[in-house]
Parts: sequence; structure tokens; C-alpha cells
Amino acid sequence: MLLLLLGCNSEKVGDLLPASFDLQEYGAILNKRVHQLRILRPRPDHFTVLVRRVPNCTEHGAYGCAVDHFFSKYYPHSYHSCQMLYDAKEIGNLQKQANDLVTRIEKLRNKSTIGKTGKDSLLLDVSQEHETLTQHNEKLQKLLHKIRKLKTKDALSGKELPTGFATFKYRRSAALAAQSQQHSHPLLWITEKAPEPRNVSWRSLAIPLRMLPLIKIAVVILATLLTLFFAVIVTGVQGIAKFEKLEKWFPPAMAVGLIPGLSSVLTGYLPSAVLKGCEYLVPFAMLAMAKMGGSVSKSKEEIKACNMVFYFLVGNVFFLSLISGSLLDEIGESFTHPSNFPSHLASAVSAQADFFVTYILTDGLSGFSFEILQPALLTWDAIVLHTCGRGEGQDPYLFSIPYFRVIPSVSLSILIGMVYAVIAPLLLPFLVGYFCLGYIVYMNQIEDVYETTYETCGQFWPYIHHYIVVGISLMQVTMIGLFGLKSKPAASIATVPLLVLTLVFNEYCKIRFLPSFRNNPIQEAAELDEEDQKNGEIEINCQNASTAYVQPSLRRVNLMKPKANLTEPLIASV
Amino acid sequence: MLLLLLGCNSEKVGDLLPASFDLQEYGAILNKRVHQLRILRPRPDHFTVLVRRVPNCTEHGAYGCAVDHFFSKYYPHSYHSCQMLYDAKEIGNLQKQANDLVTRIEKLRNKSTIGKTGKDSLLLDVSQEHETLTQHNEKLQKLLHKIRKLKTKDALSGKELPTGFATFKYRRSAALAAQSQQHSHPLLWITEKAPEPRNVSWRSLAIPLRMLPLIKIAVVILATLLTLFFAVIVTGVQGIAKFEKLEKWFPPAMAVGLIPGLSSVLTGYLPSAVLKGCEYLVPFAMLAMAKMGGSVSKSKEEIKACNMVFYFLVGNVFFLSLISGSLLDEIGESFTHPSNFPSHLASAVSAQADFFVTYILTDGLSGFSFEILQPALLTWDAIVLHTCGRGEGQDPYLFSIPYFRVIPSVSLSILIGMVYAVIAPLLLPFLVGYFCLGYIVYMNQIEDVYETTYETCGQFWPYIHHYIVVGISLMQVTMIGLFGLKSKPAASIATVPLLVLTLVFNEYCKIRFLPSFRNNPIQEAAELDEEDQKNGEIEINCQNASTAYVQPSLRRVNLMKPKANLTEPLIASV
Repeated sequence: MLLLLLGCNSEKVGDLLPASFDLQEYGAILNKRVHQLRILRPRPDHFTVLVRRVPNCTEHGAYGCAVDHFFSKYYPHSYHSCQMLYDAKEIGNLQKQANDLVTRIEKLRNKSTIGKTGKDSLLLDVSQEHETLTQHNEKLQKLLHKIRKLKTKDALSGKELPTGFATFKYRRSAALAAQSQQHSHPLLWITEKAPEPRNVSWRSLAIPLRMLPLIKIAVVILATLLTLFFAVIVTGVQGIAKFEKLEKWFPPAMAVGLIPGLSSVLTGYLPSAVLKGCEYLVPFAMLAMAKMGGSVSKSKEEIKACNMVFYFLVGNVFFLSLISGSLLDEIGESFTHPSNFPSHLASAVSAQADFFVTYILTDGLSGFSFEILQPALLTWDAIVLHTCGRGEGQDPYLFSIPYFRVIPSVSLSILIGMVYAVIAPLLLPFLVGYFCLGYIVYMNQIEDVYETTYETCGQFWPYIHHYIVVGISLMQVTMIGLFGLKSKPAASIATVPLLVLTLVFNEYCKIRFLPSFRNNPIQEAAELDEEDQKNGEIEINCQNASTAYVQPSLRRVNLMKPKANLTEPLIASV
Repeated sequence: MLLLLLGCNSEKVGDLLPASFDLQEYGAILNKRVHQLRILRPRPDHFTVLVRRVPNCTEHGAYGCAVDHFFSKYYPHSYHSCQMLYDAKEIGNLQKQANDLVTRIEKLRNKSTIGKTGKDSLLLDVSQEHETLTQHNEKLQKLLHKIRKLKTKDALSGKELPTGFATFKYRRSAALAAQSQQHSHPLLWITEKAPEPRNVSWRSLAIPLRMLPLIKIAVVILATLLTLFFAVIVTGVQGIAKFEKLEKWFPPAMAVGLIPGLSSVLTGYLPSAVLKGCEYLVPFAMLAMAKMGGSVSKSKEEIKACNMVFYFLVGNVFFLSLISGSLLDEIGESFTHPSNFPSHLASAVSAQADFFVTYILTDGLSGFSFEILQPALLTWDAIVLHTCGRGEGQDPYLFSIPYFRVIPSVSLSILIGMVYAVIAPLLLPFLVGYFCLGYIVYMNQIEDVYETTYETCGQFWPYIHHYIVVGISLMQVTMIGLFGLKSKPAASIATVPLLVLTLVFNEYCKIRFLPSFRNNPIQEAAELDEEDQKNGEIEINCQNASTAYVQPSLRRVNLMKPKANLTEPLIASV
């Protein structure tokens, strides 16, 4: 993860250099990825293949049995075992109830101990509390018994899903199985590289594969609609949020008028605060949509959200500040008269250089200070703590770095830098300042604040590369238009091959590097196997992999965190 | 092969039924393919993987050695052996010379035997002939010696190419190796399913892989230019070929004027004969271009030619007869105003129904009679025989069915039928007649005339399916335009989702069926292995595969056909 951001940051410095630099960058990041994969040798995902659309076993009527039969028949020397997925919604709900109960019991007990030490409690109160405590305990007992019953093999076998994780004895076999077509019906026995256990999106895996295309289309349509109509929505909300209107809708706001000066501050800042607030909420909305989309892993969900947020920002920050009319009109115009697009863009871009200098300055300063101070997180945490009452045992501040917010905004700055590198080079010093500040802030955040919740070994890079290519292409389109406006048709036409070359270069990068980000090459896998065999670790690693993929709701849960000093056995484990 | 055409023919009957029929058809053809693959069990291509971009072995400096090292290391239990490709141009040239010499010696010997039996030859003549015969024999001896020397291992090792065929002990391992990425550099050790030995395009495999993208782009551009400017070329050639102009350019043509009536026949038929001739030549030109494109197998070359010819016909027969202006103008118009396209198309289509009835009748009758009588083939054969003097031993008439000519013209008829099914249903009986006649003609041709030169097990089908989908989409676009013209906007808009559904259906077909046409599924491969092992044939099959992929120029060649009654050992073999 760190290495990805490092790659991203060194790219920031290199974003103004030509494409050949980009190629080196891609190669360097691929090398880092391979190196990182070697370091993280005992990873269970190397040994495991995700199998979906498993048909039912004709003999025993179970999916797990079918997986065992299939793989032990067709991968006889290398198949180890399988872990199936179960429909564990019920267990999850019960566990949530049990957790709630435990929290309540905790609170009651704390109260009574405080009462005892305080020695000012009434006897009646104590007896009442004791009663509720025993009631709660009984309830908890019942719940735990129910959960234990649901977790037995017989109860689970009825809730098997046609999805599972097949573990192999060697990395090589797992890599081979993940990359090949198993059945002549290509939509049965779909195999793919398993994500890391902490990276698995368990909820998405439970969605039937038949539904996925529909859900994906729906998500894309939703995200497109949000991008296109965001300006409309924001204008509407801003209209309502004007102080004069607020007074109409919500008469108590009149009280603000009593404090002199406050009303003018509110009138001035409210609309822009609403805009910023909406913009701040969009990444979270996109992430929520991406999570609905049924990706196999959390990293893929974040990558999807990254894509959607990037295009949202390009549309609603870059293009919307360039154009006078609405985004929709402009898009319609570009579709009907595509040849006018470059000159249109060029004239708009050159008029808006000052705006983007301001944008980068304010976004840089406000964004980075926001990132360091984490006000939103603190507020949210305070709200949750004082309303829902979070369990004491939970760690308050362990989040992973929000890629879906960071990467698109940095990529947008790269894009702005690209486009203005030729037209208004004075913007570049500001951008370099922005990137230096960003480097310092994010290095600090990554090292000291955020936790690594999963490790993708640079899977985000190809997308960052794509955003940079979008930036370069947009720069070249602007140049074509600009030369046209300055009545230099020869220069304008000479830039067209440059654009074509950029696109060809992008295709080459995809062919040259992308497969190694997607697949686990056989040579690498076999070499890691060999190293493991030398150290005698291969069996342990395989054994670890074969137990790593257990759904969160089916894990042995310790209902109390270790710091709790409870001695009663009933809440120790299920 | 037969099964492909059968599939194609049953499709002809079903082309007017809805898409669900198409789905069944695809499934049925996939089943036939799987069945056929089972029947053809001992095929060497099942055991073999084509490896390209092999790096040089660091120890021994040879490619073959590198392949052996790599696969025996990473596929330790299943790798059998490898057959490398060599740069055999020189040997090929020498062999051609040797063949020529043998033909000449044959002729001389025949002459002398005829002379002896005729007993009217002069002694001087005989001795002279004997002298040239011994001279030729000496030359041949020298040539054969040279060839033998070039074919030794030492001489060949210097001419190794970084391409080879790796044979595995089991089908399963070959299928796994073909479908996976071997090296973390995805452009090294590129593996793919090997084509059948008779299907390999040896000349293309010798082209360095780096050059291929450039060549492919060049071929696509050439084909596009030919399609776009064909009308211009033909009009130009027709202008020259008018009888009045011919008299100017080629005065001896005046002699035609002496025969009464001939000149008027010529004036009438010459231009249309030129058009038909050009159209007849196009498929061959396209095939030649496709052959330059560096495809791995002959079948892929033919498929490429099919694609190019189909789009050529759609452009130059279907669209060119619809529109009044030039094709280029029309394409430009559609690009700038895409929304006008359907109504434009609809009005043009409904005006030209009569023309297409005539087209299908004449094309059907003339095309099929041409196919049965094979006049072009006979003429070509006569020319070759009397000018270059083909070797006596060669079989004169063994060609495979020209898919690149047959499939596009049949697909075009399907397309015309689709488009006119709604507008002018009277065309359909003619079309049914055309297909029935076609079925009879081609069944006869396939069974009795053409030879099977390679077996693809239905690889052509996905392309035919694609052509049918193009036809259906075009029909729906026409319908949208037609409803618009008849001022029924509701019906027009209601047809748009139908078009979208057709495209979605096409995507579904690609996901559902295409992988099984491209890959060898592991289950299938393992089951065939098992059957072979039961019969104890697996080792023989693997052994056969390990010697099947020898370049034509490196094979042990019998310079004389068995029917020749020669006893002299020198020309027996190399």
C-alpha cells in the first residue's frame, strides 16, 4: 500500500515529463510489486482460488462436495481442500444482538461497581439492577445457544452458497487453476485469483452471479446520473439553503438575526458551504454505490469508487468551471459536432487559468489541513458515541487510507497541471508546492495515522496511470484547439499524430504490464514454491491458507475484548 | 468442417426467426464442436502449446534449450519435449530447385523412353540427351548433398527462431499451460493453443512478434481503403474498358468490328464483366492481405479474410446500391449527423427492394452455377499447366472449400433477407429458394469436390453469428427509420430498446459461448486423457504429437511420387 502511494508521489514529480518516463515508472512499480509479493511469501491468497457458480453435486446434493469431487479429479496431485461460503445473515443478526446485550450487561455491571465503590446507592436499586442483569444474562445464554446450534455442520449445510475457496498444495497449481477455463460451459466453475482474506468482500460474494450484470449496469447508470445532474442538484439545494429562504422554511432561524453580523456571515458562506459539503459527500456516495456493485474484494470496490469519483471531478470541477452553459448541453454539443470540441475547449481553458490557480491553492491548503485535522471523522465519531453508544472495546480510530477520496483529487490536480503546462506555465510552481505539501501530509498520514486493512501490491497503479493518460490526451486535445485558434493549422494537424501516439502508448502499456497486475505468473509462483520447499514451509503455508477464508460471522468470536476483566465463562466465546 | 457448413445451413432456415433460436443454434454448434473434439481424440494439437518470444538460454545460447529448461522446471511432471522453428528459407529454395531438376530429368527420361519405343531417333540425339541427363543428375546430387548438410543439427542450430511447439504428456497440462501467463514480463514466453499441424501457417510464425502489430494495422488500413475506394477503382477501370476507348488504346481491337454484331455484344457486356471480375477478384486479394497479417494458423487467415470480405460486400453491394452519392460522402454524412441515419437508410431500403430480388436471383443462379462448373479454376489450371509446367506427380484438383468466398456471400444474403423481411416480404420466397439451392450445391461440393485441408471444429461459427447479429441490428435500425418516416414516433422509439436488447444478447453470447471456442476447457481435456489412459493410447498420442510439428521444408521429402517407377536411389529421399 505504501509502495503504491510512493509510486503515486514520485509520479507527481514526473507528471510533466514525457511519456517515456511514464513507461519507466510503470516498469518500476511492476518490479516493486513483484518484490513485495516475494516478501509477503506466506500469503494465503497465493494458494487459493475463488470458485463461483459451482453446480450442485448429483450424489450428495451439496456444493462443497461438488468442489471436492471436481478439483480432486482434475487437479489430482495438487488440490488440498475447500472452504465454502454460507448464507450467514441469520447468524450475523443474532451475533449483533448478542453483542448489544453484552454491551448492556457491561454497562450495568460498571454502574453497579461504581455504585458499590460510591456507597451511596439504594438497596432497591441494586436488587432491580441485579434482576435485569440476570435477565440479560439468560437472554444472552439463549442467544449463544442458538448461534452455536446454527453453526453446526448440519445447520450450515442447508445454507451453502455455490461459491467457495479452493486451496491448493502449491502456488503454481493455484495460479494455473485461476487462469484457466474449467468447464466447457464457461459460466460454470468460474475460477479466479482469490483476494487476500482481509480484502474479501463477503457480502458481495453472497450475491448470485446471475444478478451481477444487472446490478453493475444499475450502478454505472446511477453514477452517471449523479455526475451529470450534480450541478442541478447542488444549485437546487443551494437555493433552499440561502438564509432568506431558510427563514421562511425554518422560522427559528430568525433568532440568528438577533446577533449582529452573524446573519451576513451566514448569507455569504452558507451556499459555498453547501457546495463543499456536497462535494465532500460524493466520494462516500460513490463508495456506497461501488459496494453495491458486487465486486469480489474491497480493493476492487475502492478502485471502482476511485474511477467514478475521478470522472465526477473531471466533469463537475474541470469541465463545469470551463463552460458557461450546463454540462449536459455541452456534452450534447460535443456529440453532434465533435470536430468543434478542441477549439471550444482551448478557448475555455485559456480563459480559466486564474481560477485553477486559486482552486489548486485552496484545495491544497484546505484539503490537506482537513486531512490532517480529520474534523469530519471526529464529528462523526462524537455523534456515533453519544447517540448509538458504541461498544467500549472497539478501537475508535482505525481506518484505512481513503483511496477513493485521495487518488481522484490528486489525479485531478495532475490533469489540471498537464492541461495548463503549455497554456499557463505559471500554474506549475503552485502545483509543485501542492504536491510537496501533499507528499509530506500523506507520508505522515500513511505512516502514523491510517492502518493497512488490506494489501493489494500496487493494484491501484494501473488506474492512476490511466488517469494520467486521460490528462495527457486532454492536454493534447487542448493544444490542437489552441493552435487552431492561433491560426496555425500546420501545428494543429501535427499534434494529431501525437494524440494517436499517446493512445497507442496506453494500449502498449496495457499489453506490456497489465497482465502481471491481474494474474500470478507461473514462473513467479513456482519460484516462491521452491523457496518455501527449501525452508520446509510449504505445508504450513498451505495449511494456513486452508483455514484463512472463514466468513466473519462464522469465526470463533470473543465477545469481550481482552482488556475487559471479566471472569464469567458464558460470554467468553461461542 | 462439414459440421460448420451444416450449422450455417440450418441457420439459413432459421435466420428469420427471433434471437432465441440463435441462442439454441449457438449451443447446438458448441455441442457439435465438443463432440467432434472427442471423436478426433488423437489430435496432436491437444498435447501441444505454441510458445513465442522465447528468450535465449544464457548457458547454451539456444532457444530450444531455453524452452526445455523452462518447461521442465515449471511443468516438471508433464513436459515432454519441444520442436523449435528454424529459418528454413534457404533450404526451401534449394528444395524448389531440386524439384525442378527432378521434373526436368523426368521429362528427358520420358522422352528417351518414347524415343526408344518409337525407334526413329538418331544416335546423336540420344547421346546428347544422355549427356544432359547425367549433367542434371550431378547437379541434383550436389543440391541434395547441400540440403542434407543444411539439415544437420549443427547447421540448423544457428538458424533457430524464438518460436517453438512444446509437447506435454497430458492434454490437461497442455491446456493449463496454454491458458496461463508464464513470466512476469507478459510479452516473454507467450503461450497459446497450438493449431492443428496441417493448419499451421509456417510463414507467419517466422515473422518476429514485434513486427506483428504494425503489419496488422497496415492490413486493416489496406482493406479499409480497398472497401472505401473500390467503387472509384471500378468506375475508372470500366471507363478504360469501354469498347470505344479500347479501340484507341489497343488498335488491334478494331478487328472485332469486322465481325458483325460482336462489337455491340462487347460494348454491352464489357463494363459489367469488368465489375463482376473485380468483385470476383476481391476475396482473393483480401485473402492475400490476410495471409500477410501474420496469423498463427491458416484458418485464422481465412477467418480474417471472411471478415474483410463481409464488410466489403456490406459496403459495396448493400450500401452502394442503396445510396445515390458516393460511399465516402455517405459515411461522412452519417458521422456528422448520426441521428439522421435510420430514416435515411429506411427510405433508401424501401426504394431498392426490386433491385435486391434481382440481385439474389442472379447472384444465386450465377454464383451457384459458377461454383459447380468451377470455370475459373479450370482456366487457371490450364494456364498453369501450359506455361509453368507443373510436376506430373501433383494432384490437379485438391483444394479446400473457399470459406472466404462462400461465407461472406451467404451472410450478405442473410443480411438482405433480414432487412427486407419487414419491408418487402415478397423477397423471402426467393431467398428461401436461394438457400435451398445453396444447400444442395454446397453439400455436393463439400462431400465430393473439396478436400478437408484442416479441421477447426466450428471455429468459423462465432463469426457467422456475428454477421447475423449485424444483419438483425441493421434490420432494427431500418425499422426505426421506417416508423419515423411513416410518422409513427411511438413505434420508432419502441424499437430502440429492441436494438439495445439485440446488442446485449450478442454480448451474452460472447460471454456464454466464445471462451469454449477459444480455449480447451480443463474438464474436457482431463476426460479425454482418462479415456486415452484406459485404452493405453496416451503415450502413443503424445509421441505422435512430439514429431508432428516439423516445418514442411525440414520434412523428409520423397522427391518422386510413388506412382513414378524409378529405381535409382539418388532421388529417393534426403
